[in-house]
Amino acid sequence: MRGTIIHGPRDIRFEEREDPTIVDPTDAIVRTVATCVCGSDLWRYRGIAEVPRPTPIGHEYVGVVEAVGEDVTTVRPGDFVVGGFLTSDNTCPLCQAGAHANCVNGTGYDGCQAELIRVQNADGTLLATPEHPDEDLVPSILALSDVMCTGWHAAVCAEVRPGSTVVVVGDGAVGLSGVLAASQLGAGRVIAMSRHADRQAIARELGATDVVPERGDEGVERVRELTGGFGADSVLECVGTHDSVVQALRSARPGGMVGWVGVPHVADLPQEAMFWKNVGLRGGPAPARAYLPDLLQRVWDRQIEPGRVFDLTLPLEQVAEGYAAMDERRSIKTLLRP
Amino acid sequence: MRGTIIHGPRDIRFEEREDPTIVDPTDAIVRTVATCVCGSDLWRYRGIAEVPRPTPIGHEYVGVVEAVGEDVTTVRPGDFVVGGFLTSDNTCPLCQAGAHANCVNGTGYDGCQAELIRVQNADGTLLATPEHPDEDLVPSILALSDVMCTGWHAAVCAEVRPGSTVVVVGDGAVGLSGVLAASQLGAGRVIAMSRHADRQAIARELGATDVVPERGDEGVERVRELTGGFGADSVLECVGTHDSVVQALRSARPGGMVGWVGVPHVADLPQEAMFWKNVGLRGGPAPARAYLPDLLQRVWDRQIEPGRVFDLTLPLEQVAEGYAAMDERRSIKTLLRP
Repeated sequence: MRGTIIHGPRDIRFEEREDPTIVDPTDAIVRTVATCVCGSDLWRYRGIAEVPRPTPIGHEYVGVVEAVGEDVTTVRPGDFVVGGFLTSDNTCPLCQAGAHANCVNGTGYDGCQAELIRVQNADGTLLATPEHPDEDLVPSILALSDVMCTGWHAAVCAEVRPGSTVVVVGDGAVGLSGVLAASQLGAGRVIAMSRHADRQAIARELGATDVVPERGDEGVERVRELTGGFGADSVLECVGTHDSVVQALRSARPGGMVGWVGVPHVADLPQEAMFWKNVGLRGGPAPARAYLPDLLQRVWDRQIEPGRVFDLTLPLEQVAEGYAAMDERRSIKTLLRP
Repeated sequence: MRGTIIHGPRDIRFEEREDPTIVDPTDAIVRTVATCVCGSDLWRYRGIAEVPRPTPIGHEYVGVVEAVGEDVTTVRPGDFVVGGFLTSDNTCPLCQAGAHANCVNGTGYDGCQAELIRVQNADGTLLATPEHPDEDLVPSILALSDVMCTGWHAAVCAEVRPGSTVVVVGDGAVGLSGVLAASQLGAGRVIAMSRHADRQAIARELGATDVVPERGDEGVERVRELTGGFGADSVLECVGTHDSVVQALRSARPGGMVGWVGVPHVADLPQEAMFWKNVGLRGGPAPARAYLPDLLQRVWDRQIEPGRVFDLTLPLEQVAEGYAAMDERRSIKTLLRP
């Protein structure tokens, strides 16, 4: 089979690799129907995170089960499945507490931008659709593999409730997913921080009631003006830079909550914006499996269309162009089809 | 009247002052029945926080209403009352959201270690007892003025639920109150971090199921051993030093929550103990008025005895000795009677 290997900064190659096989009795092999490039993949692409050796890359996928280990009971060959960006056994004490991203038996993947994937902890990771989906649903189911669960996690951590006023910092695929999540959770007002007309338009489609193009102090000030001078009940931090995390914390009202899901590259957290204002901070990698059943149902019922975040589709063999398009901001998120 | 003035480090004087008067129509004047010294008062006593000029001090009290402004409707002269360590109007949008400590019209006090106190925002701050309390209830009602509400806030922010495993970092009056709060909120296990036999004993009386004397790495390790290797669901940080905050964050299980109420003196927050473990952090000054009605009822019903944290009672005029006793750890918390 063929799969994507990152060899170093800006060096993405689609290469012949050995077919993955069932190693543990809890494994499944999935033939990908669609995969995609994640904003977090760009950290290595841009040389910000290290690539010590050529490494298979990608952690988002939907596909059809080809084979399962003998202990796998919930999916079978032929099923159309989606799995989260980390595997989880869905049974350990941490999974039982809803912290699937920190499952004691959890694993990552050996590169999902590939034709075939070995999925460990298949029962606790994969969810089968009721039947093979219509073609137009594929992008939205694929979005559940990471960005939509991650945006949802931000909204859950930020305690979005019916009627909440919400700010979403970041207009990438996760931020846009966060807008959709906040809207689905009943937010009364969703303020999307975005400077790009195309992303603003998608944000509005997904439920943003207001768009604020300003950043930093000016952005915080605009949010205050829009929220009676107080700041937002809930803030979703979907970027991870120092400035965006500080902006998120300062955008919350006293007693409010910030959900952070952007992999943080933060010098230090501004405690003065937290303790004295009683502003909380919670988040991290999303427990995808905790959210997948609910979100898959919403997609299946065509209640939500998280696939709206994909604005470019390429053949998987052109994966390098997918990275370039996202790196150069020609694409919000690139979908790849084998 | 006489009241306490801090003139500088270790310079506490009980002096003749002018009687407070009704200034605003929402004010009340309260004649104190009991007041006390707070751990946070010691920051100035010890010279860690500055005392730029002689300043009235103290923010905890119970007493009897002497006079009320013309707009005050919920308390009247003769009522026995307790109020939180900050005043709140209980009506502004932030109070409505439960963030009374950040009330837009909130104020502090002009020194509560005194015979008479002016209480601003009387309706939104003071709570009258059904009748004048029995003498033995006075310490427990006084404890609601700060430490018990603060310990309760830590437990609420840490999301203590029925059955939760809880760690309480800090065995001062707030930590001990946190133990009681966690126990009242139904925690299945309450691990008190304490090295002092007298405080360990009180912690056990208030609901601690385990006591861990170790600190730092060893303390974290002991908590892990006691929690199946995972850490606690909820951690109450009731100290505020860098080491204690780090210890608290590291004592939480993945997906767990830390409630912090110790005024933080933290170099920087350890993000690696937060983001990748999905450990949240929330807290700050307690919204006392939000908790007072419930907690007063529990005291009145003799369901809880938060006054157990007082282990020394002095005449108010010996307030300087009260500070010294707490500074030298001869007393956990000193109650003062005019």
